[in-house]
Amino acid sequence: MRLLVINPNTSQFVTDRICDVAGKTLGPRATVRGVTGSDGPRIVGNRAECAWAAGEALRLARGEAGSFDAVLLGISFDTGLEALRQDLGVPVVGMSEAGMLLAMTVARRFAMLTFGGYAVPLYEELIAQYGFQDRSAGVLSLPALSQAELENPRLVLPQLEAAITAAAKTRGAEAVVLAGAIFAGLAAELRDRTPIPVVDGIVAATGLVECLHALGLRKPSLGSFSKPA
Amino acid sequence: MRLLVINPNTSQFVTDRICDVAGKTLGPRATVRGVTGSDGPRIVGNRAECAWAAGEALRLARGEAGSFDAVLLGISFDTGLEALRQDLGVPVVGMSEAGMLLAMTVARRFAMLTFGGYAVPLYEELIAQYGFQDRSAGVLSLPALSQAELENPRLVLPQLEAAITAAAKTRGAEAVVLAGAIFAGLAAELRDRTPIPVVDGIVAATGLVECLHALGLRKPSLGSFSKPA
Amino acid sequence: MRLLVINPNTSQFVTDRICDVAGKTLGPRATVRGVTGSDGPRIVGNRAECAWAAGEALRLARGEAGSFDAVLLGISFDTGLEALRQDLGVPVVGMSEAGMLLAMTVARRFAMLTFGGYAVPLYEELIAQYGFQDRSAGVLSLPALSQAELENPRLVLPQLEAAITAAAKTRGAEAVVLAGAIFAGLAAELRDRTPIPVVDGIVAATGLVECLHALGLRKPSLGSFSKPA
Amino acid sequence: MRLLVINPNTSQFVTDRICDVAGKTLGPRATVRGVTGSDGPRIVGNRAECAWAAGEALRLARGEAGSFDAVLLGISFDTGLEALRQDLGVPVVGMSEAGMLLAMTVARRFAMLTFGGYAVPLYEELIAQYGFQDRSAGVLSLPALSQAELENPRLVLPQLEAAITAAAKTRGAEAVVLAGAIFAGLAAELRDRTPIPVVDGIVAATGLVECLHALGLRKPSLGSFSKPA
Amino acid sequence: MRLLVINPNTSQFVTDRICDVAGKTLGPRATVRGVTGSDGPRIVGNRAECAWAAGEALRLARGEAGSFDAVLLGISFDTGLEALRQDLGVPVVGMSEAGMLLAMTVARRFAMLTFGGYAVPLYEELIAQYGFQDRSAGVLSLPALSQAELENPRLVLPQLEAAITAAAKTRGAEAVVLAGAIFAGLAAELRDRTPIPVVDGIVAATGLVECLHALGLRKPSLGSFSKPA
Amino acid sequence: MRLLVINPNTSQFVTDRICDVAGKTLGPRATVRGVTGSDGPRIVGNRAECAWAAGEALRLARGEAGSFDAVLLGISFDTGLEALRQDLGVPVVGMSEAGMLLAMTVARRFAMLTFGGYAVPLYEELIAQYGFQDRSAGVLSLPALSQAELENPRLVLPQLEAAITAAAKTRGAEAVVLAGAIFAGLAAELRDRTPIPVVDGIVAATGLVECLHALGLRKPSLGSFSKPA
Repeated sequence: MRLLVINPNTSQFVTDRICDVAGKTLGPRATVRGVTGSDGPRIVGNRAECAWAAGEALRLARGEAGSFDAVLLGISFDTGLEALRQDLGVPVVGMSEAGMLLAMTVARRFAMLTFGGYAVPLYEELIAQYGFQDRSAGVLSLPALSQAELENPRLVLPQLEAAITAAAKTRGAEAVVLAGAIFAGLAAELRDRTPIPVVDGIVAATGLVECLHALGLRKPSLGSFSKPA
Repeated sequence: MRLLVINPNTSQFVTDRICDVAGKTLGPRATVRGVTGSDGPRIVGNRAECAWAAGEALRLARGEAGSFDAVLLGISFDTGLEALRQDLGVPVVGMSEAGMLLAMTVARRFAMLTFGGYAVPLYEELIAQYGFQDRSAGVLSLPALSQAELENPRLVLPQLEAAITAAAKTRGAEAVVLAGAIFAGLAAELRDRTPIPVVDGIVAATGLVECLHALGLRKPSLGSFSKPA
Repeated sequence: MRLLVINPNTSQFVTDRICDVAGKTLGPRATVRGVTGSDGPRIVGNRAECAWAAGEALRLARGEAGSFDAVLLGISFDTGLEALRQDLGVPVVGMSEAGMLLAMTVARRFAMLTFGGYAVPLYEELIAQYGFQDRSAGVLSLPALSQAELENPRLVLPQLEAAITAAAKTRGAEAVVLAGAIFAGLAAELRDRTPIPVVDGIVAATGLVECLHALGLRKPSLGSFSKPA
Repeated sequence: MRLLVINPNTSQFVTDRICDVAGKTLGPRATVRGVTGSDGPRIVGNRAECAWAAGEALRLARGEAGSFDAVLLGISFDTGLEALRQDLGVPVVGMSEAGMLLAMTVARRFAMLTFGGYAVPLYEELIAQYGFQDRSAGVLSLPALSQAELENPRLVLPQLEAAITAAAKTRGAEAVVLAGAIFAGLAAELRDRTPIPVVDGIVAATGLVECLHALGLRKPSLGSFSKPA
Repeated sequence: MRLLVINPNTSQFVTDRICDVAGKTLGPRATVRGVTGSDGPRIVGNRAECAWAAGEALRLARGEAGSFDAVLLGISFDTGLEALRQDLGVPVVGMSEAGMLLAMTVARRFAMLTFGGYAVPLYEELIAQYGFQDRSAGVLSLPALSQAELENPRLVLPQLEAAITAAAKTRGAEAVVLAGAIFAGLAAELRDRTPIPVVDGIVAATGLVECLHALGLRKPSLGSFSKPA
Repeated sequence: MRLLVINPNTSQFVTDRICDVAGKTLGPRATVRGVTGSDGPRIVGNRAECAWAAGEALRLARGEAGSFDAVLLGISFDTGLEALRQDLGVPVVGMSEAGMLLAMTVARRFAMLTFGGYAVPLYEELIAQYGFQDRSAGVLSLPALSQAELENPRLVLPQLEAAITAAAKTRGAEAVVLAGAIFAGLAAELRDRTPIPVVDGIVAATGLVECLHALGLRKPSLGSFSKPA
């Protein structure tokens, strides 16, 4: 399987981190290649930037036409996910979507955990867009991260641990999905420090996309994900 | 009030029609000016095109900075509406949003009416995104329009009349919102031919945007429609 | 446009305040006239009083038959709104309904703000009746107002400001609708003191009713708002 | 137990029929007395009439103060139910509410069955107001009844039987609630003619009100059903 | 009426308590007999135990075939309720189901009150399974009970009183359903100590099952509660 | 990975078919072993049988303690899924749950397809239990299968093809999940005969369980899936 990671942010280090985690998850069964946005914000964070990023994701995918068997969309708002799914003929999975789907196999209600506060309503809307409100225990947020923390998110492991434990104790969360590509790879380190499972969206998406690739479902010829006449 | 009509489709005749209807609705109380997408499909119709159009709407708005007091988004999927609302400091109203809001002041449940069938799920998702499912009687569709009908939608008045009457009789619809900028202006002609009110999204949006301009609400400094730090 | 303000409470000063705000909003484009309940509580506040007020609103409307083009229902529970809408042949808008509809054009989630606590569930039910739960951030309440505060609500501007700011910071409210006819006119004074927009139901209803009057929608001949056979 | 049947319609024969059915259900364990609206429509059937009837129900209850231990509200829209419940200090049960509650103990999804078509949306709203949409299989309607059929509803037993059977076969209804006080007593005759249980709202309400009387729950001193300060 | 109380827990004292309360509620109108699980946990408390208990309830019912006219399922998770309802030809009522149904005749929103915390999500899922989320004010929990308190739940009356009062004041609960067969009989003692009604599931179920027995609804021959072909 | 297939039905040929499909999906990466119910119906099909099967699934799992790394629950009602998940310390996936989760990565709305009609409400409740109603296009059913068709489901490929195509054209389904362990393996044969993707629950569950095994999420120590104190 040739996996294309699309990161419509313009931050190469995020693409690298996602590719690294996906590559380790897949091992020799697949090749992983990443493409990064060339124009726009380093880290998409609001409604206007999301609108921009959706188009950027499409442009990146079209530019790589024919060179991949599946797509992992590496932006935690899953921006442009359904557009890519309709436009392409191969499986496409978003990292937050994948995190939620797998969280629902181990928990009745999952919390999402982000940082900086501003994006909380955007994740709430994403959950609602997927129709998963009944399975949600809410969207929680760490304070805004410093530049040092953005570059080395392991620095916030104690805050993540505290927030996850609180989500379990006070909100009834039975699993947590880490929202934010920069958190890729941290779930494993939290495994033995939290009372509930922590799902890494990148690992989840990597697994799901492989699953879908193996399933070999056909491209629909009817419906909103088909090619229009 | 200086009203900017943003049509992210690349079809000038649609922009002209919207501006004409908005201008007649507002009379001398306001000036109306339209901008049209320069790159992309003539009539946006699927998920990938919507993703593109959201970015185009943003680019058009930013290019006109300072020259308008309010925005009417003239694309029936309301594509990019929330992005514009967050990005700009003035009221922004979408034509389908406006049609639904006003329909709910005369009906418990409204139907939307489009053409060609393909976009039915997209309108259903729009209704769900706004949280108006409990007020919806469904999304109905005429068959695909011919080129002649696209250019002169008055040709389908009989089909619209029949579909609206059927929606009232068999679906419990108590009002209909015409979905599609090309239908701008037709509601008035259907007024005496249908058993339930028919709402023209352009007229509705024009009224609402004037309302909001008069209300003079402040730009938020908190929340997902504020400018991020 | 000849606007009739119906206040089924028996408090003339509330009618006067509503007419004053509506008149200023409309300017010379319309005449505004108010009618006030003649029998019943000064300020409707519970389920039994609401049941009474719905009938009173109907009686008031029927007593003015032929003398108006549109109705603004000036009671914050929108009591009798759908009955009036079915009974009359002109547009009817409720003040809380209008506040919510306009709030949804600037916010994903709005809070309502009332006083005295007792009526919180009634507003929650009103939101649910309209099907707007997904857009609601809850109903908040100031403590009960003193007689002096009821007569001069400007005295509670600091409390309103604090409650609105808290709603934005702790509940994710992105706009607030003031619930209570006695708050008519206060939103403008809060404009520069709160982080999120504050919608005055009377101003909103005045704008919407004018919108609907201009739209000229037909009276339905089918459905629950038509005249029964 | 002294049961008061309140029929805010002005049709004495409906009151008589309800009292007769309730009396037979209760036997010597209780006395049953009925009061009938004195001003208004013979059979309430639309939004404006419902608004009127709610007030009439309140007036009737207050006029009988002290003479009853429990109330059965004998109008199939349950009009004024929550107002009575807040206003009085004794149990109050509505006939459609009771029918739905008992239907849910024998079925996942129940249908309501009315006549004449016009009131279908009103019953849909009643179901939604109670929050029972997930348990509803829809509201069905016989055609309008003739005067003869209104006076002798046994004439429509074949149509009821056919409609109930169809509801089971094509809508997944697992029980049917007869909506309409004039249907009081018919369920028993349908018992062996339909594939699913048929619930008579009057019998159900009689049973529930006796249940509640025995339970002896206290009148709340907090919340929207308490007496306001 | 011959009432069979099925307690799939293996705790005879719980069966005895339920039979005692049911017997007092019914008086000479009915006989009450209880059966108790013979294999499994004393008090069912988690998902695996619930799965076990559902089968145990079925086995107990089948073992008593022909000896009863109605069933009261005496386990607060209502475990196996719908299985019994499909399997048997007589009315079956669950104690939490009954508590919720009656609570909804006196309150817009009810809270459930349990102990030990662990089962809170299970009751939330039960409420959702019945489709009553819109009527729920949440599930609250006392701390875990000591052995002495389990045997003599009157010891926790002060904690129940405090929790119920808090539910009314801070959660908007307008009634409380006691969740847990061991609380059978306590509601009456709380009657004058709490600001809102407290519903005893056993008393409620006893009343409802008598109601249903009197109603004499037929066993369906279609739908998911019928006997399969 | 040592995968245990639990089939609480007593039909060995179903277990064999599931193990065969799972084995082919996993290839040499895992071993697959199946266990079959020893007491009960050959094919579980109603509420009472589901209650029985949940306990049987638990007994089967406990009997194999220590011999597996993950569980695939091979009964299309996912009966006992959450009980197993709480009871065991390894990933457990249900076949219908898995089918729905993967269907949601290629479609906005999926239909389920079963046979015989009787179980339609049970699948509707399963969808609701998972909170996926907003993503569901309904549950469809072929007529009851003959014995020959049960033993060789390939005989109904034409009926499946027709039902799937109809679901796409008339219900807006964008994918179909085959409900019924006997359909294991058929999706691949339908791939080029239907306009929308068809998901085989067994293949989907096999992929997901491998995904979860790789993810290595911890067993929770809090919440309803933890071991109780």
